[in-house]
Amino acid sequence: MGQLDSLSLTEVRRSLHNHPETGWTEFWTTSVLAEELDKRGFNLYFCSDAVEEASRLGVPPADEISAARERARKAGAPTRYINRMGDVTGFIAEKQYGLTGPTVGVRVDIDALDIQEPSDHDHRPTQLGFASKYPNTMHACGHDGHATIGLGLAREIDDRGGFDGTLKLFFQPAEEGGRGGKAMSRSGHLEDVEYFFALHLGLGNETGTIIAGYEHPQPNTKIDVSFLGESSHAGNAPEEGRNALQALSTAIQNLYAVPRHGNGVTRINVGKVTSTNPQNVISDAATMRVEVRGRSPELDEYMLKRAKQIVRHAGSMHSVEVSTERYGETTTFTADEKLVDLVANSATKIPAIDQIVRRKTFKASEDASYLIRQVQQNGGSATYLGIGASNVAGHHNPYFDIDENALDIGVSILANSIRAYDDM
Amino acid sequence: MGQLDSLSLTEVRRSLHNHPETGWTEFWTTSVLAEELDKRGFNLYFCSDAVEEASRLGVPPADEISAARERARKAGAPTRYINRMGDVTGFIAEKQYGLTGPTVGVRVDIDALDIQEPSDHDHRPTQLGFASKYPNTMHACGHDGHATIGLGLAREIDDRGGFDGTLKLFFQPAEEGGRGGKAMSRSGHLEDVEYFFALHLGLGNETGTIIAGYEHPQPNTKIDVSFLGESSHAGNAPEEGRNALQALSTAIQNLYAVPRHGNGVTRINVGKVTSTNPQNVISDAATMRVEVRGRSPELDEYMLKRAKQIVRHAGSMHSVEVSTERYGETTTFTADEKLVDLVANSATKIPAIDQIVRRKTFKASEDASYLIRQVQQNGGSATYLGIGASNVAGHHNPYFDIDENALDIGVSILANSIRAYDDM
Amino acid sequence: MGQLDSLSLTEVRRSLHNHPETGWTEFWTTSVLAEELDKRGFNLYFCSDAVEEASRLGVPPADEISAARERARKAGAPTRYINRMGDVTGFIAEKQYGLTGPTVGVRVDIDALDIQEPSDHDHRPTQLGFASKYPNTMHACGHDGHATIGLGLAREIDDRGGFDGTLKLFFQPAEEGGRGGKAMSRSGHLEDVEYFFALHLGLGNETGTIIAGYEHPQPNTKIDVSFLGESSHAGNAPEEGRNALQALSTAIQNLYAVPRHGNGVTRINVGKVTSTNPQNVISDAATMRVEVRGRSPELDEYMLKRAKQIVRHAGSMHSVEVSTERYGETTTFTADEKLVDLVANSATKIPAIDQIVRRKTFKASEDASYLIRQVQQNGGSATYLGIGASNVAGHHNPYFDIDENALDIGVSILANSIRAYDDM
Amino acid sequence: MGQLDSLSLTEVRRSLHNHPETGWTEFWTTSVLAEELDKRGFNLYFCSDAVEEASRLGVPPADEISAARERARKAGAPTRYINRMGDVTGFIAEKQYGLTGPTVGVRVDIDALDIQEPSDHDHRPTQLGFASKYPNTMHACGHDGHATIGLGLAREIDDRGGFDGTLKLFFQPAEEGGRGGKAMSRSGHLEDVEYFFALHLGLGNETGTIIAGYEHPQPNTKIDVSFLGESSHAGNAPEEGRNALQALSTAIQNLYAVPRHGNGVTRINVGKVTSTNPQNVISDAATMRVEVRGRSPELDEYMLKRAKQIVRHAGSMHSVEVSTERYGETTTFTADEKLVDLVANSATKIPAIDQIVRRKTFKASEDASYLIRQVQQNGGSATYLGIGASNVAGHHNPYFDIDENALDIGVSILANSIRAYDDM
Repeated sequence: MGQLDSLSLTEVRRSLHNHPETGWTEFWTTSVLAEELDKRGFNLYFCSDAVEEASRLGVPPADEISAARERARKAGAPTRYINRMGDVTGFIAEKQYGLTGPTVGVRVDIDALDIQEPSDHDHRPTQLGFASKYPNTMHACGHDGHATIGLGLAREIDDRGGFDGTLKLFFQPAEEGGRGGKAMSRSGHLEDVEYFFALHLGLGNETGTIIAGYEHPQPNTKIDVSFLGESSHAGNAPEEGRNALQALSTAIQNLYAVPRHGNGVTRINVGKVTSTNPQNVISDAATMRVEVRGRSPELDEYMLKRAKQIVRHAGSMHSVEVSTERYGETTTFTADEKLVDLVANSATKIPAIDQIVRRKTFKASEDASYLIRQVQQNGGSATYLGIGASNVAGHHNPYFDIDENALDIGVSILANSIRAYDDM
Repeated sequence: MGQLDSLSLTEVRRSLHNHPETGWTEFWTTSVLAEELDKRGFNLYFCSDAVEEASRLGVPPADEISAARERARKAGAPTRYINRMGDVTGFIAEKQYGLTGPTVGVRVDIDALDIQEPSDHDHRPTQLGFASKYPNTMHACGHDGHATIGLGLAREIDDRGGFDGTLKLFFQPAEEGGRGGKAMSRSGHLEDVEYFFALHLGLGNETGTIIAGYEHPQPNTKIDVSFLGESSHAGNAPEEGRNALQALSTAIQNLYAVPRHGNGVTRINVGKVTSTNPQNVISDAATMRVEVRGRSPELDEYMLKRAKQIVRHAGSMHSVEVSTERYGETTTFTADEKLVDLVANSATKIPAIDQIVRRKTFKASEDASYLIRQVQQNGGSATYLGIGASNVAGHHNPYFDIDENALDIGVSILANSIRAYDDM
Repeated sequence: MGQLDSLSLTEVRRSLHNHPETGWTEFWTTSVLAEELDKRGFNLYFCSDAVEEASRLGVPPADEISAARERARKAGAPTRYINRMGDVTGFIAEKQYGLTGPTVGVRVDIDALDIQEPSDHDHRPTQLGFASKYPNTMHACGHDGHATIGLGLAREIDDRGGFDGTLKLFFQPAEEGGRGGKAMSRSGHLEDVEYFFALHLGLGNETGTIIAGYEHPQPNTKIDVSFLGESSHAGNAPEEGRNALQALSTAIQNLYAVPRHGNGVTRINVGKVTSTNPQNVISDAATMRVEVRGRSPELDEYMLKRAKQIVRHAGSMHSVEVSTERYGETTTFTADEKLVDLVANSATKIPAIDQIVRRKTFKASEDASYLIRQVQQNGGSATYLGIGASNVAGHHNPYFDIDENALDIGVSILANSIRAYDDM
Repeated sequence: MGQLDSLSLTEVRRSLHNHPETGWTEFWTTSVLAEELDKRGFNLYFCSDAVEEASRLGVPPADEISAARERARKAGAPTRYINRMGDVTGFIAEKQYGLTGPTVGVRVDIDALDIQEPSDHDHRPTQLGFASKYPNTMHACGHDGHATIGLGLAREIDDRGGFDGTLKLFFQPAEEGGRGGKAMSRSGHLEDVEYFFALHLGLGNETGTIIAGYEHPQPNTKIDVSFLGESSHAGNAPEEGRNALQALSTAIQNLYAVPRHGNGVTRINVGKVTSTNPQNVISDAATMRVEVRGRSPELDEYMLKRAKQIVRHAGSMHSVEVSTERYGETTTFTADEKLVDLVANSATKIPAIDQIVRRKTFKASEDASYLIRQVQQNGGSATYLGIGASNVAGHHNPYFDIDENALDIGVSILANSIRAYDDM
C-alpha cells in the first residue's frame, strides 16, 4: 500500500506539509503522489517526458539535488519512482475515461519555500505535529494544499467512474521563482488539452469564495548576476584588483534608476547580494539576483534589456566579467470566458460556496501562465481558479497555514466543472 | 604531565598547527600553553587580568565562543585553565628571576585564520599529518610558530637559570584584524616593562635573516557597518520599503571616492558584503566591513571620519538606520635605537644568522603597535623583530607553512638579547 | 488711442507674438492689454492686488526684471500701467454689467518661452514679419492666442451690451514652469467667482473641436537645488575641498532611483545642471533643477519628499550645504459637470465647431489648477476648455504656430457660455 | 617704430598686462613681440614653422580665434605679423651671433587666464592704469613678465654684441592647461639646441632668490568628455530618452573612485560640468572636463586609461555616446646637473640675488616639460629656473601682480648663464 492512499485529504495535506521540498528537489512529494496515481492506473510521465530539461530555470547545484534525493529515500519515498525521475522532479499523470469527450488538464504546483517553520505552539502545524521536519524549508504558500487537491481530484473522478474524456494532471515543480512552468509547458503534453485549469488557495479570499477567472498576473523575470573580478591586496596594490564590488554597487545604483516607462507599471529590485572578500582584499567576486516586472510582457522585456545592459557595462567599467543566468520567469494571461462561465455555473451548485467572483486581477506572478498560454495557443480554453481559504497569516509568512476546509471545495469545483462538459 | 611539556619546539608548533583557533576562540591554545608555564612557576593572568575587556574588538557572538570552548575541552584542554579564562582567551605569564634587573616583556600572538587548509599531500602539514583538524580554520600566518617561540623562550630562560630581572610573556589573542592588541596593551601589565619585544616570522625574509627593528606599520581601522531598513513587497509597494541595499550601494560608491589626501597615502576597501533579502522583497538589512588605512594615525583618522560620514548619510538618504562597530584597529610605531643596537649585536653571536638588517619598513599592519607605544609612553624601549623563515608560500595563502628551523633562531635571538642586558 | 484697440484679433495676436516675454517679465504684454481694458471701463488690479507676492515662484533676479521693464518701455509700453505694476507682471480686470447675475471668471496666461524663433521663411511668423523681435524668446505654446482670446472676450461682451453679472478676467503671468498660478489664486479675487473658465488652444485637437472639460492634469513640483561646498586645489589638497560635484552626482544617481510607487505613476527628472569649477579645483558650487510628478497630489508629494531627503543627505555626505527653492508647481482638478454641460450645449450653437468632446484627460501640467481648485473650494464651478487649433508643429517646438481661425472660436464659446447663464 | 621698442622692460610688461590674451588667441602679444625682434634681425618662424599644428590641444572654436584676431588688429597689432601667423599664435625667433659656440634655447610662455581683473584701486595694475582692458581675461600667472624677460634677454644679448653662438627664443602660446608645449616641442627647432632654459617668476619664492633647477613637475592630462544621448519628454516617455545626465553622474561617481595606486600619488578631478536640458526633458547632452595626475608618466597614464574606460562604459550603460578629446597635457623632467651648476655659478655674480637654491621640486604642472625632454632626448642639457618675485597674491588669484624688480634679475641670470658658456 502506498504512503498516501489510506489517508484523507486533510491527512495527505499534512503529510505533504510535514515533508516540504523546495523547487527541483521535490523527490518525496513527486514519488508518493505518483505511487497512488500509478495504482489507480494513470499513465505517468517523468523527467524529460514531463519537462523540457533545457527550459528548467533556477536549478540548484548537483550536490543539493543528490542530497535531496537521499533525504527523500530516507523519508520513505518509493524507490521505483525515484529511479524513474532521474534528477528531475515533478510529473504528469494521464487517464483516459472516455473516447469522445475532451482532454482536460489540471495543473497543481508542489514546491515549498526556504522559510523556517516556527516551533511556536500557537502555530497549528506545530501544535498538531505536522510542521516541517526539515530546517529552513516550509510549505508557506499552500502548494501542499494544491498538490492535495490534484490528488483529491483524481480520486474523486476515478472513484465516481470518470467522465467522457481524458484527465491530465500536471504536478508542476519549482513554481516559486517561476522556474518550472515554462519547462512543463514545453513537455508536449498540452497539445491535445482542450480545457485547462490552474488554481490557487487563499490569496486573501475567504473560504467559500470562488474566483472563476483570475487573470493578468504581472510578467516578471529574475536573473542571477555574477561579477568576476580579480583580487589584490587593498593596501599594497589596489590598482591590481578588478573590483567586483565596485561593479556591483554601480550596477545596483543604476538598476533602481532604469527610467520609468510611459506605457505602464514597471518594477525592479535586487536581492541575494554577496561579496565574501575580506576587507583587506579587493573583491574578486560578487553576486546578486535581480527581478524585473512589467504590466505587459513588453514592459517586462524593456526592464530586462535595460538591466542586462547596466550590469554588463558596470562590469566593463571596472574590467570585471559579468555573467547573467535566468533564474526564473513568468508571463501573463487572460481567462477564457467559456471557462469562466463554466466554473461560475458549477460553483452555484456547491453549497459550501457562498460567493462567486467572475474575474479578478491576479496581483502576483504565476508561471502557470506558460501552460495557460500554451493551451490557448493550441486553440484550447483555460482559466485560473481562486479557491478561497481563510488562512491565519499571509502567504510566505512563517505563520501561514491553510484552512483545510478549502481542500474539498477545491476538489468539488474542479470535478463539477469537468463533469459539466458532458452537458455542454 | 601537561600536553606540551615533553614536546620539542617543532612538535609544539605542529600541535598548535593541528589545533588552530581564530581570534577570541583560542581556548585550547591558551590553556595548553598556560599549563606548562604554570608548572614552571610563572604567575599567570587571565581574562580581565590579561586584557581590558571593554577594549576587545571583533568579538564573535556568545554561541561561537561557547562552541569553541566546548571544542577545546573535547580536544583535551586542561579544565583548570579553561575555567580561569571565562569567555576570554589569551594570557600573560610572569616570572621574577632577579631583583635588580629590568622587567622584559615579549609579546607573541596565538590566533589562526578562517582559511581551509588544503588536503593536498603536496602540502607538508597534510603529508606529515599535522594539518588543521578543524574545517575552515588554519594557522596560515605563522602564529603557531610565534606562540612556540614564546614558550621556547620561557623554557630557554628558565632552564638556564633565568637572568637578573623579570620576564613577562604576553600571549596575545586576536591579532588578525587588529582586535586584541589594544585590549592587552591596557591590561596594566606593561607599566613596569622596561624592554619590550614583539616579533614576526617570515614576511618575505629568508631563514638566517634578522630584522632588528621593523617599524612604521600602516595604521588601519576596520568597522562593521549595518544598514537596517524595512522590507516591503517589491512589486506591490516598493515605496513602503526603506531599502538597505540602496543605502549600501550608495555608500560603497562614495567610500571608494573619499578624496585622496595631500599629506600621504590613504586606502579604503569594502568586504564581507551581504544583503540576504529575496529578490521580490525590498532589502531590510545589509552589512559590510570597511577598512581604512593611512600612512599616519592622522590620515587613518581622516579616512575613518569620512567613511563614517558617508555611511551615515547614505543611510539617512534612504531612511535606513546605520550602525557602525569597530571591528579592529592598529596603529604605528618606531623601533628604539637602543634595542635595535642590542638585537643587532646579539644576532652577530648566533651562527645560524647570516644577515642582519637594522631597520625596515613594516608594510602590513600590526596591533603589537599598541603594546609597543604603551611601553614607550611609560618610558620603556621597544622593538619589533623580523625572524627570517624561508616559507613555501605567502602569508594567508592556504599553502603557507613555516620553515621550522626559524623557531630556534627566534628563541636564541630573544634569549641572547635579554641576557645581554646584564652586560649593558 | 491704445496700441491694440484698433487691431483685429488676428492682429492683436501677431503683435503679442512679436513681443514675447517670459514669466514675470510680461511688462509690455500686461500694459498694452491693460490699456484697452482700462478704456473700456474695467477696474484693473495690479501687483499685490493681482497676485500674492510671497507665493510667486521662479522669479528671475532683480536685474533681469529691470531690464525687461526697460525693454518694454522702449517697445512703447504705456508708462501709466508700467508704473502701476511695480516689479510684478500680470493683472486682473473686472467689470460689473448686471446686479443680479453671477460673477464669471476667465483665466488666460500670457507668458512666452526661452526658445529661439526660427529665421527660416518656411516659418509663417517669420515669413509674414511678426516673429519674435527678441532673441531666445518665443510664444511657442500659444499663450499669445490665449491673451488675445481674453481681450476678444472682453470686446465681445462689452460691445454687445454685457450680460447680467460681472466679468473678471485673470491675465496670469508665468504659467510656464507653474510659477504664477498659485500666486494669482491667492489674490482674493476668486472668492466671489461662481463660474470659472480656463482654456488652452491646440494640444493636438484640430480646429473645430471643443473639449468641454479637460481634467486630471498631472501635479508636479520643480525645485532648484544648490550645492555649496568649498574649493581646494585638486592636486595639492583634494581633502580640503568639500566637493559640490560629488554631492550632486550622488544626488542624481539616487534621485532617478526613488522607488516607484504602488499607487500610481510617478516621474522624476533633472535638468539645468552646472558646476563651473576649473578641472584643477575641487567644485565649490553646483546647481540643478529637479522636477517630480505624480498622478495625484499625494504621489507628487511623495516624490518631492524623497527628492529633498536625497539631496540633503547627498550634501551632508560630502559636508556640502544644500539649499532648495521651489521653482514651480502645479496641482490637479476635475471639471464640474454643470459647466461641462453648459459648454457642450453652447458649442452646438457655433457653426465652426464640428466636434464636441465632453471630458478628456489633460496629459501635461497646468497651474490654472490652483485657480480652479480655489473656485471649487469656495463653492463655485469651474472647467478647463480645450479649443482645437490645427497647429503646424507641437507645443514648445520652435516651428509652433497657431491656426488663427481658432481665436474667434475661443471667444465665441466663452461668450456663448457666459450668456447662457441667463437661461439657466 | 614698433610698439614696444621704446619701452622699458617694466613698460613692456605693463603693456602686455594691459592686453591679456588666453591660449591660442595671443595675436596682439605675438605680433608686437615679433615686430621688435624682426627689427633686431632675428629670423622669425610662425604657424606651422613654430608649432606642429596637429599637436595643438584645447584649441578654441574658429569664431573665437577670428574674433581674437580682429580684436588684436583693432588694438594696433602690426598687420604684417598677424598675416604671417594665420590662425596660430606664438613664434620662434633665432639669431646667430657666432659660428663656433652652442645653440641656446630659451622658452617663455605668453598666454593669460580666464579671470576678471579687479576694478578695485587697491589692485596696483588698476591703480596705475595698466589693468586688463578685456573682460574676464587677465595675466594672473606672470606670463606677461615671462614674455618681457624673453624680449629683455634678446635686447641684452643683442645690445652687448651677442655671444659666440646662436640664440633661439621660443615664445610659447597656450601654456595654461598644457595645450601648447607639446606642439612647440615638435616644431623641429629644438633639434640643434645644446642648452635650454625655461623659467617661472614667483611660485612663492621672494625677489632675490634663484632656483637653479626646478624639476619633477607632476604629469597630468585633461580630457573634455561629451555625452550625447537623446531627449524625450520626462513625463510622457522617459524610456525613449537616452539620458546623458545619468551617464555623466555615473561616470563622476566612478571617476573619483578609481583605485589608488600602490606605486605613488595619483589624482583625479572633474570640472566644467554642464547639462542644459530643461527639467522636463531627458538630457540629450552633457559635458565635463576631467583632469588626472600621477607622480610619474606611468601613473598619469594609469589614471587616464581608467578614466576613459569609466566614461565609455558609463555612456554605454545608458545607450549614450561618449567622445573624449584631449584638452591639455604635461609631462615631467629632471634638471641637468651641468646647467644647475652653470646657473648657480652665474647667480653668485648678480648682486640682486641673495639666495641660491640648487634644486627644488616643482609642485604644479608645466608643459615646458615637453621642450625640455625633447632637448635632453637630442643630447642637449636643460634646466628650469625659478626667478623669485615677491608677489602680493598667489598665482591665479585675481589680485596677483608681480614684483617688477624681478624682470631685470631674470634677464641677468639668463644672459650671464649664456655668456658663461664662453668660459666653459
